[in-house]
Amino acid sequence: MSKIVTFGEVLMRLSTPGFSRFEQARQLDVTYAGGEANVASALAYWGHHTAHVTRFPDSPIGRSAAQYLHFHGVDISNIIYGGPRMAVYFLETGAALRASQIVYDRVNSSLATIDPSELNWDEILKDANWFHWAGITPALSQGAADACLAGIEAARRKEITVSGDIFYRANLWKYGKKPSDVLPALTAGTDIVIANRENIKEIFGIDGNDFIESCVNLKKAFPQVSRVVDTKRTSISATHNLLRAYLWNGTSVLETPDIDINPIVDRVGGGDAFIAGLIHGLISFNDEQKALEFGVAASALKHTIEGDALISTVAEVEAIRQGETSGRIRR
Amino acid sequence: MSKIVTFGEVLMRLSTPGFSRFEQARQLDVTYAGGEANVASALAYWGHHTAHVTRFPDSPIGRSAAQYLHFHGVDISNIIYGGPRMAVYFLETGAALRASQIVYDRVNSSLATIDPSELNWDEILKDANWFHWAGITPALSQGAADACLAGIEAARRKEITVSGDIFYRANLWKYGKKPSDVLPALTAGTDIVIANRENIKEIFGIDGNDFIESCVNLKKAFPQVSRVVDTKRTSISATHNLLRAYLWNGTSVLETPDIDINPIVDRVGGGDAFIAGLIHGLISFNDEQKALEFGVAASALKHTIEGDALISTVAEVEAIRQGETSGRIRR
Amino acid sequence: MSKIVTFGEVLMRLSTPGFSRFEQARQLDVTYAGGEANVASALAYWGHHTAHVTRFPDSPIGRSAAQYLHFHGVDISNIIYGGPRMAVYFLETGAALRASQIVYDRVNSSLATIDPSELNWDEILKDANWFHWAGITPALSQGAADACLAGIEAARRKEITVSGDIFYRANLWKYGKKPSDVLPALTAGTDIVIANRENIKEIFGIDGNDFIESCVNLKKAFPQVSRVVDTKRTSISATHNLLRAYLWNGTSVLETPDIDINPIVDRVGGGDAFIAGLIHGLISFNDEQKALEFGVAASALKHTIEGDALISTVAEVEAIRQGETSGRIRR
Amino acid sequence: MSKIVTFGEVLMRLSTPGFSRFEQARQLDVTYAGGEANVASALAYWGHHTAHVTRFPDSPIGRSAAQYLHFHGVDISNIIYGGPRMAVYFLETGAALRASQIVYDRVNSSLATIDPSELNWDEILKDANWFHWAGITPALSQGAADACLAGIEAARRKEITVSGDIFYRANLWKYGKKPSDVLPALTAGTDIVIANRENIKEIFGIDGNDFIESCVNLKKAFPQVSRVVDTKRTSISATHNLLRAYLWNGTSVLETPDIDINPIVDRVGGGDAFIAGLIHGLISFNDEQKALEFGVAASALKHTIEGDALISTVAEVEAIRQGETSGRIRR
Amino acid sequence: MSKIVTFGEVLMRLSTPGFSRFEQARQLDVTYAGGEANVASALAYWGHHTAHVTRFPDSPIGRSAAQYLHFHGVDISNIIYGGPRMAVYFLETGAALRASQIVYDRVNSSLATIDPSELNWDEILKDANWFHWAGITPALSQGAADACLAGIEAARRKEITVSGDIFYRANLWKYGKKPSDVLPALTAGTDIVIANRENIKEIFGIDGNDFIESCVNLKKAFPQVSRVVDTKRTSISATHNLLRAYLWNGTSVLETPDIDINPIVDRVGGGDAFIAGLIHGLISFNDEQKALEFGVAASALKHTIEGDALISTVAEVEAIRQGETSGRIRR
Amino acid sequence: MSKIVTFGEVLMRLSTPGFSRFEQARQLDVTYAGGEANVASALAYWGHHTAHVTRFPDSPIGRSAAQYLHFHGVDISNIIYGGPRMAVYFLETGAALRASQIVYDRVNSSLATIDPSELNWDEILKDANWFHWAGITPALSQGAADACLAGIEAARRKEITVSGDIFYRANLWKYGKKPSDVLPALTAGTDIVIANRENIKEIFGIDGNDFIESCVNLKKAFPQVSRVVDTKRTSISATHNLLRAYLWNGTSVLETPDIDINPIVDRVGGGDAFIAGLIHGLISFNDEQKALEFGVAASALKHTIEGDALISTVAEVEAIRQGETSGRIRR
Repeated sequence: MSKIVTFGEVLMRLSTPGFSRFEQARQLDVTYAGGEANVASALAYWGHHTAHVTRFPDSPIGRSAAQYLHFHGVDISNIIYGGPRMAVYFLETGAALRASQIVYDRVNSSLATIDPSELNWDEILKDANWFHWAGITPALSQGAADACLAGIEAARRKEITVSGDIFYRANLWKYGKKPSDVLPALTAGTDIVIANRENIKEIFGIDGNDFIESCVNLKKAFPQVSRVVDTKRTSISATHNLLRAYLWNGTSVLETPDIDINPIVDRVGGGDAFIAGLIHGLISFNDEQKALEFGVAASALKHTIEGDALISTVAEVEAIRQGETSGRIRR
Repeated sequence: MSKIVTFGEVLMRLSTPGFSRFEQARQLDVTYAGGEANVASALAYWGHHTAHVTRFPDSPIGRSAAQYLHFHGVDISNIIYGGPRMAVYFLETGAALRASQIVYDRVNSSLATIDPSELNWDEILKDANWFHWAGITPALSQGAADACLAGIEAARRKEITVSGDIFYRANLWKYGKKPSDVLPALTAGTDIVIANRENIKEIFGIDGNDFIESCVNLKKAFPQVSRVVDTKRTSISATHNLLRAYLWNGTSVLETPDIDINPIVDRVGGGDAFIAGLIHGLISFNDEQKALEFGVAASALKHTIEGDALISTVAEVEAIRQGETSGRIRR
Repeated sequence: MSKIVTFGEVLMRLSTPGFSRFEQARQLDVTYAGGEANVASALAYWGHHTAHVTRFPDSPIGRSAAQYLHFHGVDISNIIYGGPRMAVYFLETGAALRASQIVYDRVNSSLATIDPSELNWDEILKDANWFHWAGITPALSQGAADACLAGIEAARRKEITVSGDIFYRANLWKYGKKPSDVLPALTAGTDIVIANRENIKEIFGIDGNDFIESCVNLKKAFPQVSRVVDTKRTSISATHNLLRAYLWNGTSVLETPDIDINPIVDRVGGGDAFIAGLIHGLISFNDEQKALEFGVAASALKHTIEGDALISTVAEVEAIRQGETSGRIRR
Repeated sequence: MSKIVTFGEVLMRLSTPGFSRFEQARQLDVTYAGGEANVASALAYWGHHTAHVTRFPDSPIGRSAAQYLHFHGVDISNIIYGGPRMAVYFLETGAALRASQIVYDRVNSSLATIDPSELNWDEILKDANWFHWAGITPALSQGAADACLAGIEAARRKEITVSGDIFYRANLWKYGKKPSDVLPALTAGTDIVIANRENIKEIFGIDGNDFIESCVNLKKAFPQVSRVVDTKRTSISATHNLLRAYLWNGTSVLETPDIDINPIVDRVGGGDAFIAGLIHGLISFNDEQKALEFGVAASALKHTIEGDALISTVAEVEAIRQGETSGRIRR
Repeated sequence: MSKIVTFGEVLMRLSTPGFSRFEQARQLDVTYAGGEANVASALAYWGHHTAHVTRFPDSPIGRSAAQYLHFHGVDISNIIYGGPRMAVYFLETGAALRASQIVYDRVNSSLATIDPSELNWDEILKDANWFHWAGITPALSQGAADACLAGIEAARRKEITVSGDIFYRANLWKYGKKPSDVLPALTAGTDIVIANRENIKEIFGIDGNDFIESCVNLKKAFPQVSRVVDTKRTSISATHNLLRAYLWNGTSVLETPDIDINPIVDRVGGGDAFIAGLIHGLISFNDEQKALEFGVAASALKHTIEGDALISTVAEVEAIRQGETSGRIRR
Repeated sequence: MSKIVTFGEVLMRLSTPGFSRFEQARQLDVTYAGGEANVASALAYWGHHTAHVTRFPDSPIGRSAAQYLHFHGVDISNIIYGGPRMAVYFLETGAALRASQIVYDRVNSSLATIDPSELNWDEILKDANWFHWAGITPALSQGAADACLAGIEAARRKEITVSGDIFYRANLWKYGKKPSDVLPALTAGTDIVIANRENIKEIFGIDGNDFIESCVNLKKAFPQVSRVVDTKRTSISATHNLLRAYLWNGTSVLETPDIDINPIVDRVGGGDAFIAGLIHGLISFNDEQKALEFGVAASALKHTIEGDALISTVAEVEAIRQGETSGRIRR
């Protein structure tokens, strides 16, 4: 199995129980999650050595967050402690025609206030063969952006595969930089880009007549990029979605059939599970189509599990990939 | 925003958690609700000044009930205290082909034993521009019926819009009067009647070849009536319904498309949310069609929320009215 | 009403709350259940005198199990105490494309270690007019198999109707015997066999061109058998199933239409509820088609109820049998 | 073991979880309890055949109440169904210097509206050797008082021992009778009276210089009375009490040492557990002192158990009676 | 009754259920609380018109916080919305020798980032006759300190009584000012100071040989001060405390006896309940000793209630003040 | 920090919530615990590298158990998978005079059916400097006893400190051996023995006039033994205990003062926390008295924490050791 290193903010997730609204909740379910850490925990359940890098406040809350990742099997030895506070997100789970709702409270978090020199990437990436980052990290602060770039550059030096989920949230980016100022340098060091045509256009000003042409043009600007991956979600309701994915491999676009998910138990983390599945597939199978399908199957399975994290075995995902979705009891 | 006054019984609602049956439940969820109060609380969340009028026992239970309405933003300063007991209803929530089940325990409630002189309607309705009642209140007792009539008459004197949900439960009405003895006088003072063709026929002996003709004939008997409104629910299962509504405005019948609700989280209070939405729409929009659609959207949204009360913003309902029912996460 | 005696293992059922996975659960819901006891409890709710026979450890856990059956109205006076331990099963409830998962821990249970002489079947079956067993019991141990056979033989002597659910779990049977060694003798004393064509072939080596021919051939080998019953489940997902049933009555095969169940609240015990419904129907109605439909309706209703046990009235099942599956609120 | 018949109202008990106040509770714990039924359930756990007589509404709520008594092992075959409603009591559990608080809602209950002819006492008391009643029942209504008297008279005819807890709640008695109008006739047929000196004085106008003299004088008025029993509670706080008891046996007053109870888990039902313990002791031991101590031990144990009902074995109570109160873990 | 205005930060309170540690909690109980708002809610339950002034983020979380205060009866019409985030505190409840633990996350809160001009104190304090502030507010930021001072000055102009709890948390004050820079100006406008001798010395450099002399000297520096109040807590364990209070009234020091509190249900907010009780007492009684005792009784009662808020009636507090602490059930 | 290896059975712990009895519980709290693993987890929280050795079934339940230890920071890389089942224990928590109750279900567990050759102790103990075992392990089966002896012998070869909690449960030992057959060989390789005078006498037939003389005589028989440690618990009630400890160091007996624990939250694991504290103390301090006190402080702290595991920092334990037991809130 491989060693995969992920980097990004981990937030305390406070979600209302069942379908209750924020106003109604007198209890909140608490876990700790973040896009990149979700990738790490899914991969850890499948037997990979995964290490997540982040920064937590030096408090019982920060230590509880690290311990929660440890529970999921993630190596927490590279987590650093300091800074003012734990990022938080509040989640209200919707149903039917009522959308789920997320309220972020991540200003001034311990990761946003990181000094990039606190991380020794050459040490962290020792023995690693994969590094994963996402576009939310450089949106947090200059320090976070610099730390992310330093990680990518170290990975490049070590010839480690780099994947980047360049989806950026437009309403972050409050420290004076725009996505187009920062993401190109990060993308330049990245092998596998998770992005759709709109992202590519908005961030890099690169377009094409279709997804494949956008990818070709992206590679012209960023020659390190070898694959571009995208998922497509058809949202029938908050509790009923269809899911498929696309992968451009430099030559053609592979595609998966839709998986029908009804009812959805917890949609959050679905995209991260896809990335985890894709990484597992690309590492483990010599078959890009199968890897892509494994990613979609992992994502679909995640939608049936409470919390951001995909808790599963390889066999469970593989069964779904092969179409065993009838839900018959396993004894 | 307007001031809307509602009048009617509020019951302690004791519901089994999840889908458990009465026999299984060792805990019951407790809230306080009633058809007219549900209208008031939905409107309060949308910024209206709403005041509910009822009578509670002078006990910690009665005070908790009032406080619960206050939590929802309802003005409780006109609630009076006295009488023997809080009305209660027990709810077991069904699923799929198993129906939900309600057991009422409202005999001898504090509202049923009201002396109409306890309420000073001229004072209560000061500054109000809407009064809402329902057909369950006159079913409780002569005192409740008289108090309701006194409220309608005071509203008439003040030229306040009066809406009445004349749906009556046949198995109430145990004090010697029949709906046809009592409801005509109440309807005579009402502008907007919520009723279907069957209700109109059974209560008033007024019929027609279709809904529109029934409404025309109803207006002949009750000239104050300017609109008749009805909803139609298609019940595929306990957890899957379709919902639409009709409004006769003296000229024609407006109609909305069906909204598909699947899964239903809590169906109780859906009709009250429709009325609240309709009232909000008629007050706020100069567009009856939009008002009717807002009512159906409000009702549909209610089905996704635990408890009788619709906890929502105007923007949430409006988005559903405009067809945003895909349930994509809002961040 | 009749007296029905059932025999078989009762397990502590420990299920994760909601849809949580085993790894996530810090609480487990606890009830006590077993296929034959589930038949007894469903019938008890419908007013039959039902007595379950099993063996529990003489501990607070064993006594709690008996008390739980008593809660469901089952006569527990024939339960015996002794042996090392309570059998346990762990249940993780799936959703959508994620299957539910059951982990058994029944080795060395109090029932498996029974000495058949501990049960005085002539005494136990006094006044009874039905005896029900299932193929899991003889799979547990020689002692359990012998005790089951003794019960069937006593029932035969008293000319009591015997029903047997001969479904066997292949991964039990660890004491040196195969199903084909043991089940024929039990089946020889049985009037009503619950089995499908595959079971009949695998256990008895008896086949036919279709279900009816298999049944005819089965009766040739086991002349006591008067009816063979089977259910067919179409599993669209873990939370959406269709259900129907077949009954061969010596002459022809009766069949029911599919009942659509969506969403499923708890699928476990669905087969037992079918058997209970069938027994009730055969005892109460002079109409095999109606009895079969009552069985399927009972099974469908069970899928909407938490726990193995079907808690219901005859009227509720009958309404579903007659097609009232719209789930409208009952007040 | 003996057959003990108890008669009295059973209420739905709705208690706030933990120490929360009524205003805070969004869930209520639900059980079913009543003074005389509590006596029955405690005795059932100790192996006695106990049957409780009461009247419940013919509804899922009424049936759930009966089923709950059945769970505790009480024979429910003499419960009758009818009348308007289930009596309810609300409980808020105090701590330290904050008192627990009970709000009753028992007006117009199914038992209060009983017609005494609905009960065939000669049938009910067949095979019984003990009948227990309490002073709350005649306080409910004339019908309840008459039914209670009929039970006592039937017991007298059959020469069954009768015990009566004549404690009356002054704020009941709303149907036009006073305790002194009704209780003498009931007491006349009673062998064992649970009462203190103040009760005796207030109800019967009988006094003495001390407890013993009051008892002597009581017996002069009611020659059937052979024993008078009283408990004394020292209330240090809501969660810390001392408990002792006295028994006048016609000759002298026996007395027990105080048992220290800290912390109290649930104080409600403590008096009923005492009566159950006393009855068990008088039936099972030829030693009044031991019986009295067993009663106090049972009562003390009840204080450590949630709910009104004493769930225990004889051995557990006996150990406390013998002074084993150190709470060392039993394995 | 009076109108009391309070000003200060309200935090989301996230507490571990029962006695669980942060690491163990997978649910957190959520309420909203703050020292000054706790004073307001306690007084609202006693019938006073209380209005709390603070600043919340304009989000579902901010609105839920306001609604929670409204639930407690506090007037929320002067709350303003804006700024980055809701302050949060995490609470782990200790037991016996294990201390409770609080982790604050209040940096950059909506109140800390207030612009004092957002508050129109003359409007806010219209009709008010009491204003209460605490030393934590000026510790948050210059803006919060200035807003507090503006409130005090407006109160002075209107000759409203001002109380100030000058206890400051040394580990706040991160914006460049020290308590001794800021608190004197606030104290100069305050009538009733809650402080002990150590606070007075550390903040103002004012001392004396005993409490009375410190108070005399404080008044010399701040002539507006008419009373100084202090509480003394004897902490036997996390769940067992004794509580008393002192009041210097310009002439002498009044003192109360200790109240014993065992077990403590929730200690947080105990000091605020004292202040609320004192304010109620000074407003309602013409008896400083009684007012002081009412404060201690209110504080003691708070320790038995979950959450920061004292939910009680005047009668409940008064009973404790008069020594009714035996905890006997109230029916 | 040191590396400590522990060996022994880990059981699924199923405990009734709050103070409910087995009969009442419809949910059970689930954790995983065992005496030796409890030692490991406490030490892991204090920063030691601790590895636990055991055998789990190869099932989701077995993996959940391992994951739970991992959550507590314990190295699980030496756990082996196989065998029939997870050991279980059921816990009902007592209060006041009602004792807690434990029911074990450990027959035929995966550890009991271990083949000693499955463990490569030389590999497992590489880099370790402490090995801890307990007398329950050799009681399970010959295989478990042999595996334990092999571990001790490997530790001796590597000159690792060995501690052994020789307390044996008399009602285990069902495989044909007596404690006196097996424990001497294990003790012969042990440096630090946790035992009281009664244990020493019963197991080894070694006695003395007092604890010190017993220890001296024990050392004569087992020269490797350098210290004997004992705790003394004074049990006032199930929720109130006093705790102290003794240590014989070859020369004299050290002793600690009593720590008063009231109320106890969860007493189970208290002895294991003592051992963990003692090991930490002996490793970290050059002061046996301080080490012994640290052990008692750790044990006392454990009593305030739910579950078997002591979740704490060194600083928290040290504060209690120094007498900070007032429970004042830490902010």
